[in-house]
Amino acid sequence: LNKLVIFGVGLIGGSLALALKKAGAVNTIVGVGRSAESLQQALALGVIDLAESNVKLAIQDADAIIISTPVAQTPSILEAIKPHLAAKTIVSDAGSTKGDVVQYVAQILGDKAHQFVPAHPIAGAEKSGVTAAKVDLYQNKNVVLTPNAETSQQGIALIRNMWEQCGAKVMEMSAAQHDQIFAAVSHLPHLLAFALVEELAARPNAEQLFSFAASGFRDFTRIAGSHPEMWRDISLANKPALLKEIKAYQQQLAQLNTLLENNDGASLEALFERASVARNNWAKNQ
Amino acid sequence: LNKLVIFGVGLIGGSLALALKKAGAVNTIVGVGRSAESLQQALALGVIDLAESNVKLAIQDADAIIISTPVAQTPSILEAIKPHLAAKTIVSDAGSTKGDVVQYVAQILGDKAHQFVPAHPIAGAEKSGVTAAKVDLYQNKNVVLTPNAETSQQGIALIRNMWEQCGAKVMEMSAAQHDQIFAAVSHLPHLLAFALVEELAARPNAEQLFSFAASGFRDFTRIAGSHPEMWRDISLANKPALLKEIKAYQQQLAQLNTLLENNDGASLEALFERASVARNNWAKNQ
Repeated sequence: LNKLVIFGVGLIGGSLALALKKAGAVNTIVGVGRSAESLQQALALGVIDLAESNVKLAIQDADAIIISTPVAQTPSILEAIKPHLAAKTIVSDAGSTKGDVVQYVAQILGDKAHQFVPAHPIAGAEKSGVTAAKVDLYQNKNVVLTPNAETSQQGIALIRNMWEQCGAKVMEMSAAQHDQIFAAVSHLPHLLAFALVEELAARPNAEQLFSFAASGFRDFTRIAGSHPEMWRDISLANKPALLKEIKAYQQQLAQLNTLLENNDGASLEALFERASVARNNWAKNQ
Repeated sequence: LNKLVIFGVGLIGGSLALALKKAGAVNTIVGVGRSAESLQQALALGVIDLAESNVKLAIQDADAIIISTPVAQTPSILEAIKPHLAAKTIVSDAGSTKGDVVQYVAQILGDKAHQFVPAHPIAGAEKSGVTAAKVDLYQNKNVVLTPNAETSQQGIALIRNMWEQCGAKVMEMSAAQHDQIFAAVSHLPHLLAFALVEELAARPNAEQLFSFAASGFRDFTRIAGSHPEMWRDISLANKPALLKEIKAYQQQLAQLNTLLENNDGASLEALFERASVARNNWAKNQ
């Protein structure tokens, strides 16, 4: 890549920039963002080569544009780039939801929609901002692309290659399938963790409760420390799949509650055993 | 201590033994357990000095007896030791629930109940067994004692001193207060994690789902890898407090669900923000 433009140089965009620079895979990285201060920080850290507030200038002659802002900003960024988007420029994103992005792209980019390759690098971290960026964030991580029949094959190859140069494993699936999978294994757990901390933090004896919380609580709630705006956007963007997951979970929890009410020790132990075996087998193979 | 007897030489009892040996705080540690094999393992690892299957011989002349088996075994162990329990011997435990233990002690030990000091070392770990024992498991960890008005002051002092020699911070509260606090910050999160893994593992596409689970899922579900029998016992032993916590959590989750259904982005973000701040402030001060 000769010129790469990153909208939103935070943890995700910043780590991408660092990895591509280390791999020698890009000549110039231009950062665009809402906050002049954080762009200056990105410049100072050597994450980007240029900060540019004028979108037209920023994306001129770009090989690729990566949108790695909170997902709710994607539509307005698509609006802003569309009039200046050259035919050779490939656009991609890093959003945790894909159905909404695909819809925005069709609506907003119109006859340029084929230049957009929807992508989701799976590298969860509760930290945010460019200071949290890490050169090896994507090493051995999965990146899911959700192109459709119209998506430029050349664009897919370019984005695939870009992520592979960061050490990631790249795969493709439909946007709908992506959103169902991540509602279950990522979005639901985040909501469950937020809900627990919200519940306890609002109590009069919250301070005492927290003072006895130990390592189990620490790990369980780590994702409750995640970026509130980002998770608002993800929740709303993946609402139908997430509501389905919440419902399934509520039923599971109600069933567990019934076993406990009935003093059904054998069934409780069997449930814990199944979960424990499944979880430990998964962790072993990671 | 000249002679310490440990019933159940697993992670908890084994780590206690290792820490006391390192501190030079005990002359002889005798292990008693259901499984001859794991006792032999504890002997081979140097965690205990003697393995003894005869309870009378095991506890003869003991300064202290620690019951660190799954909590459901506590009553039968109390039954077994009572006839042979010398007046000078202090008994304690390491159970994650205290109301049930206090009740068993009153019922079973009767006029020897004052010799029992209920204790809960707070050192969660999803691993179990003597091979998981670590000499520094209790370093800077909390140990809660829940004595009542009858409990021997000398016994409290002995058990307090024993844990302090392992590097732990020792505090006292009522058994009821203990059980309410741990229902909220430990028992509920465990059940929530078990429920999530159970829910996903039972699906036809479980393998695919797990293949996309990342670090957030790993941390959130770590406690779902915990010992099934132990968590069956804890759940049943702390049933009333735990049912209350499940109910409060279900209401919180239902409220979050409503915010999502209503597309109430502002309230969702505010909730995530409160939780995120509370969680990160807590973690910072740990």
